[in-house]
Amino acid sequence: MMSILGNGFKPKSFFILASFLSFLLLLASSPATGQTEKPRYQDLADKIAQKGMNEGYAYSVLQKLTRIGGRLAGSAQAAAAVEIMRQEMEDLGFENVHLEPTIVGRWVRGEPEEGRIVSAKLGTIPISICALGGSISTSADGVSAQVLEVKSFEELQKLGQKARGRIIFFNRPMNPTYVDTFRAYGEAADQRVSGAAAAAKAEGVAALVRSLTFGENEFPHTGMMRYEPGVPKIPAICVSTKGANILSQALRDDPDLVVLLKTSCATLSPLTSYNVIGEIRGSEKPDEIILLGAHLDSWDLGEGAHDDGAGCAQVIDALRLLKQVELRPKRTLRGVLFMDEEFGGTGGRDYANSEQRKGEIHLAAIESDRGGFLPLGFNVGGGEAALAKVKQWEYLFKPLGLCWIKPGGGGVDISPLAASGTIMMGLVPDSQRYFDYHHCSQDVLQAVHPRELELGAIDMALLGYVLADAGI
Amino acid sequence: MMSILGNGFKPKSFFILASFLSFLLLLASSPATGQTEKPRYQDLADKIAQKGMNEGYAYSVLQKLTRIGGRLAGSAQAAAAVEIMRQEMEDLGFENVHLEPTIVGRWVRGEPEEGRIVSAKLGTIPISICALGGSISTSADGVSAQVLEVKSFEELQKLGQKARGRIIFFNRPMNPTYVDTFRAYGEAADQRVSGAAAAAKAEGVAALVRSLTFGENEFPHTGMMRYEPGVPKIPAICVSTKGANILSQALRDDPDLVVLLKTSCATLSPLTSYNVIGEIRGSEKPDEIILLGAHLDSWDLGEGAHDDGAGCAQVIDALRLLKQVELRPKRTLRGVLFMDEEFGGTGGRDYANSEQRKGEIHLAAIESDRGGFLPLGFNVGGGEAALAKVKQWEYLFKPLGLCWIKPGGGGVDISPLAASGTIMMGLVPDSQRYFDYHHCSQDVLQAVHPRELELGAIDMALLGYVLADAGI
Repeated sequence: MMSILGNGFKPKSFFILASFLSFLLLLASSPATGQTEKPRYQDLADKIAQKGMNEGYAYSVLQKLTRIGGRLAGSAQAAAAVEIMRQEMEDLGFENVHLEPTIVGRWVRGEPEEGRIVSAKLGTIPISICALGGSISTSADGVSAQVLEVKSFEELQKLGQKARGRIIFFNRPMNPTYVDTFRAYGEAADQRVSGAAAAAKAEGVAALVRSLTFGENEFPHTGMMRYEPGVPKIPAICVSTKGANILSQALRDDPDLVVLLKTSCATLSPLTSYNVIGEIRGSEKPDEIILLGAHLDSWDLGEGAHDDGAGCAQVIDALRLLKQVELRPKRTLRGVLFMDEEFGGTGGRDYANSEQRKGEIHLAAIESDRGGFLPLGFNVGGGEAALAKVKQWEYLFKPLGLCWIKPGGGGVDISPLAASGTIMMGLVPDSQRYFDYHHCSQDVLQAVHPRELELGAIDMALLGYVLADAGI
Repeated sequence: MMSILGNGFKPKSFFILASFLSFLLLLASSPATGQTEKPRYQDLADKIAQKGMNEGYAYSVLQKLTRIGGRLAGSAQAAAAVEIMRQEMEDLGFENVHLEPTIVGRWVRGEPEEGRIVSAKLGTIPISICALGGSISTSADGVSAQVLEVKSFEELQKLGQKARGRIIFFNRPMNPTYVDTFRAYGEAADQRVSGAAAAAKAEGVAALVRSLTFGENEFPHTGMMRYEPGVPKIPAICVSTKGANILSQALRDDPDLVVLLKTSCATLSPLTSYNVIGEIRGSEKPDEIILLGAHLDSWDLGEGAHDDGAGCAQVIDALRLLKQVELRPKRTLRGVLFMDEEFGGTGGRDYANSEQRKGEIHLAAIESDRGGFLPLGFNVGGGEAALAKVKQWEYLFKPLGLCWIKPGGGGVDISPLAASGTIMMGLVPDSQRYFDYHHCSQDVLQAVHPRELELGAIDMALLGYVLADAGI
């Protein structure tokens, strides 16, 4: 090893090390401004970590929530979830527990969907499909047509007349080479959101979209789609990745094959649902608010466990932990479980615009809506000053395994608050497994790990408290 | 927001931010020594990340390996695994592919174990058990005795005569409040390793040890146990956490109950097995070696997927990726799949002590033996200079999601190399789920996520190459 050291020695390395160590020293010594601050929060961090990991309460909240099935906005399950969570907040002794109304669109899936390839050459091959959220249904007999496979809207446009009368099959996979799976999702989601409008413009009869997930499996992934004003509405349907691969191969073997798709989804009249709200009131500035948010609605397939039952469970447990250690922050810590993130975001908008917000100042809002996986970091908006402020407390989160605090935004539900200056923040967990479960039948309780979920609850509690106590 | 900014403004925050930014600037500019170094490795990093994530080859290696079942040292499966991996290395065109012998102890489980509580008051309740590795068997009729439950060796000692003729039930759970699950494991493992010896000293007739896992489940977790010279050998048996909880409750309801335990494990004569070795030879200093290591043997329950099939798959894929991008480092990159980590560590010792090591200098060894979960960091031994050297390349790993490079050690297999000055390094993935699978029937292919596994392979490839090229 000695010769190795001699070999590898570079003064530059030591310079970097020294600079890094001095930086650490600086960081460690800097809370000397509020010298009492660091020990106080460290004690809190230790207490709630100990309590949280020992009790694993977030998972028990998630159990209650997932037991009732998917919580599509406007459904009976969503209404039940509102009541379960309101009751939970009451039982835990949260303050000012109440519901705030929001009008939600209502879309129902109807009967289980049917999809099959019908080929003179290959026979009949079933493919696993589901209607996309917001889609019109096919006729009662289904839509049956030849298929045009494309990878992009540009390709579709170039093919011109060939699209007429066909089912347009959007088969561009999510890019597996991105480490950030949300980036891969973002680049592929146009097919799901706008595929039907693009297909209709090309005179297609339906849009059939490859599931937004990595890997090959049987489970179609639903999600929101949008029609365009002035463009005919045609059915928008998702096919599992396995179904997509089978269909793509079958098209190479028999380009004349026909696909039959049958759905019976429908849009019903809107109705009133609710955001569920509970607090720990601030001792000194109760009208200054730090909001912990997640969304209570989910897709109907699966149980909405990761998306976003996990976030709801973390918000509830974060407030519970703080309540139980009997620390009251100077400002109000408010938990908001938003209704209707998946289907229009009305809960978030109505919360921000409510008459009840008058006189309230939302300093910061932290959302958890990226699944209940191992927490890796916090995104912090509001520019460099806010980031620097939060990074001051990084030492509190490191022992909890949190790796970083970076610039970035919050989530859909809290975003309408940004207009009035609220600083957006978001819990960021490991994203590698998220799209295995996202919007499909696999998003069930068993897919969430109790310890990973709880770590997120503890992180939310701690950041929430520190912000509510110290301000930002 | 303006008033918020005004409120939260602290000059200290800006000082920290400024210092941090200047540090980043320093870090970014520092590879100016070897100005060509940074872009070169960045290009490599991009290439192998792209290739690795796209192909997900590590998972296909793991499929081959897990298909044959658990690979207990000395078993037919372990022998098959040696051949499969040797062939894999040959097929991938690794250089100097060969086997190096190591004598391994051989222990067999025998018939499926039987465990039950027999109580006049409560009736007969089955509990799920398994023999611990290295244990003697019970008699053919099993051991049947009253039970003494303890949480520690100290407690057992204090109870004195009460242990005589009893089954000693070690029921101290892993501490769930530790974020680092290996710490919790370390603090509870004495029960499994030395429980039988402690029980025998107290004149107990068998040791029954609570599974080393969090949560309550049906699956007993096996693992190594050791007898002590001069102390009678009594059966060492593991009970699932659910079985342990049932038994503990039953003892409160009926302290006179009897437990029956039946095992038929046996120790057979040792035999010769092999470490499997393959390389990319160094272009300039082929006798200077960077070793990538994992262990090929596993426990017999499950498929040894996380422990340590994952590590083997990562070592293979790391070399494959580097081979395919056609970069040959200055020093030799050697993959070693060690035999017999679980049951005595003979593979690691025999590798280090082999005649074939003469003339070789092992600069560094990197082990992956903590499961195929999301990689979080690298542990780096060898003191501050080595750490600083590796931290220079941290920028290469950040885009891959790796969070940190910290002081720390490697793994069991490579540890015998430390005596000759080799710097120990270890890939450290998320540990939250590890003990759900560790040493039990649940450690199967499906428990490993292809993307998380692959990220580890890419990290290993990159660190291996950089060390082999730049030295340390």
